[in-house]
Amino acid sequence: MINAVFKTKYPIVQAGMIWCSGWRLASAVSNAGGLGLIGAGSMYPEVLESHIRKCKAATSRPFGVNVPLLYPQTDELIDIILREKVPIVFTSAGNPAKYTQLLKREGRIVAHVIANQKFAVKAVDAGVDAVVAEGFEAGGHNGLEETTTMTLIPLIREVVNVPVIAAGGIANGRQMLAAFALGAAGVQIGSRFAAAAESSAHQAFKQSIIEAKDGATALALKQLVPVRLIKNTFYQQVKAAELCGADRETLSALLGRGRAKKGMFEGDLEQGELEIGQVAALIHQIQSVDEIFSDLFSEFKLAQSHIKQLQLSENESE
Amino acid sequence: MINAVFKTKYPIVQAGMIWCSGWRLASAVSNAGGLGLIGAGSMYPEVLESHIRKCKAATSRPFGVNVPLLYPQTDELIDIILREKVPIVFTSAGNPAKYTQLLKREGRIVAHVIANQKFAVKAVDAGVDAVVAEGFEAGGHNGLEETTTMTLIPLIREVVNVPVIAAGGIANGRQMLAAFALGAAGVQIGSRFAAAAESSAHQAFKQSIIEAKDGATALALKQLVPVRLIKNTFYQQVKAAELCGADRETLSALLGRGRAKKGMFEGDLEQGELEIGQVAALIHQIQSVDEIFSDLFSEFKLAQSHIKQLQLSENESE
Repeated sequence: MINAVFKTKYPIVQAGMIWCSGWRLASAVSNAGGLGLIGAGSMYPEVLESHIRKCKAATSRPFGVNVPLLYPQTDELIDIILREKVPIVFTSAGNPAKYTQLLKREGRIVAHVIANQKFAVKAVDAGVDAVVAEGFEAGGHNGLEETTTMTLIPLIREVVNVPVIAAGGIANGRQMLAAFALGAAGVQIGSRFAAAAESSAHQAFKQSIIEAKDGATALALKQLVPVRLIKNTFYQQVKAAELCGADRETLSALLGRGRAKKGMFEGDLEQGELEIGQVAALIHQIQSVDEIFSDLFSEFKLAQSHIKQLQLSENESE
Repeated sequence: MINAVFKTKYPIVQAGMIWCSGWRLASAVSNAGGLGLIGAGSMYPEVLESHIRKCKAATSRPFGVNVPLLYPQTDELIDIILREKVPIVFTSAGNPAKYTQLLKREGRIVAHVIANQKFAVKAVDAGVDAVVAEGFEAGGHNGLEETTTMTLIPLIREVVNVPVIAAGGIANGRQMLAAFALGAAGVQIGSRFAAAAESSAHQAFKQSIIEAKDGATALALKQLVPVRLIKNTFYQQVKAAELCGADRETLSALLGRGRAKKGMFEGDLEQGELEIGQVAALIHQIQSVDEIFSDLFSEFKLAQSHIKQLQLSENESE
């Protein structure tokens, strides 16, 4: 199990999410026995530095930082992570080769987020300690293959020997158990923590998560970088443009800049990007991290005791 | 478990698939202890009648017929099912109200395939004995919400009290166990049986299933009826038309008639529709139904013994 790698109590990782996971959420998850991740994707270098320092002050347990490798300031973010001695780094959305080697030389534990076999193998070749295999149902940026968690976890297990952390479609204890049944060594939970009391998301966005129903999200902007969003006014504009055959330039102009901040941090539910997973439909209340962990454990144990007794036929001598 | 409802030995249903599941596949699955389904979607009434009679001659165990409720000849198909005393009927792709009541009056067991909460509730209101909840990763026709099996099973469990059969993304014993962990009472397996020796699919199509890799399929024709296909030449033509803003009429004309037969039954891998699930990437050989069942059981038992021992933390007193 992945807790042995991260030296956490439980094999539960809180996804590093832009505009949701600052030091407050990450330290609460680490204090609860999971692995909290600060999401650096929405942070300037000095903001990240401040969050890391506050997180260290708030927990003595292991925590990490998630760094999407697609911003020009990545070098500076990695420098801060090294200087501040953050023990665990998750990288995503880019080539893991360069930074994995640097981080491993400095003794850090590294996981890389992937959504297909090819990049899983690349990440392992680069020297990562674990991969996060993220399915189509996940919120935020997503892979082009659209492979779901149910299919992706066994596929990734076929080609790598490092622990696989399942992500996408996991918000309760049943789904955790399903991920372990598929062969995962740990789970990464995003949406449920985005709606946590300790999340830095705007209250209006949290409210829209717990009100989201079956079918409330869609994978949008596939010609740019696919991203799973709540189907709000902005999404409908994108969709209408796509149905008319809009090209990449038109879509880029429509997206503009700062949509994610506008939606998730400033609470503009009409014109902002509201990045969340399909499991939002299963999240019904804003809870503290401790309440979420308590729910996860009791749901998990109930499901596990059901599975322990399960017989495929009445006459199990088959 | 769903075996109690169908009076089968195991809670394993073989999906009724056009051009793949005739009497040979259905009777082999029923003889192995699962529930075999004849896929009536590709059959004229007299062809269905002949398949039902051959299936009855080939097995004394329960079997069923899958009827998509979108063809003009549905009344005739249902008449034959009643006359031939087929005990179990799966309906899909249409309103279950009319036929469920008729079939229940005649003492048949009825399941309806759904992909969202709204239709699950409708099916239960119509009086079905079970629902098949089919996720985005499934092959063939699919729902508009694109909800994956990982998310869909718990969502459907929230709104119905009848047994839920999980479909989509299930081709091995680990995935079966995951489906039960999510709360399913049974599993429906399609792609793996489409590639079985007893499937009536063309040998070239079976070969393309076992050669399919990670990312080989996509959900296409969303403006018409969404359908998951192998990304062959025909798919690329559809995709190119969609990127230019093609409307429904243009896409309908491009699709034409008989594409599924051309691909799956006649083996035209370039111009035919090749309907298969994402799990094709996990299917590596053409096997007999008995070999598939044997694999499913051994994989399931291995995964179950792993889950039985699983502890979320070393100190499980938590």
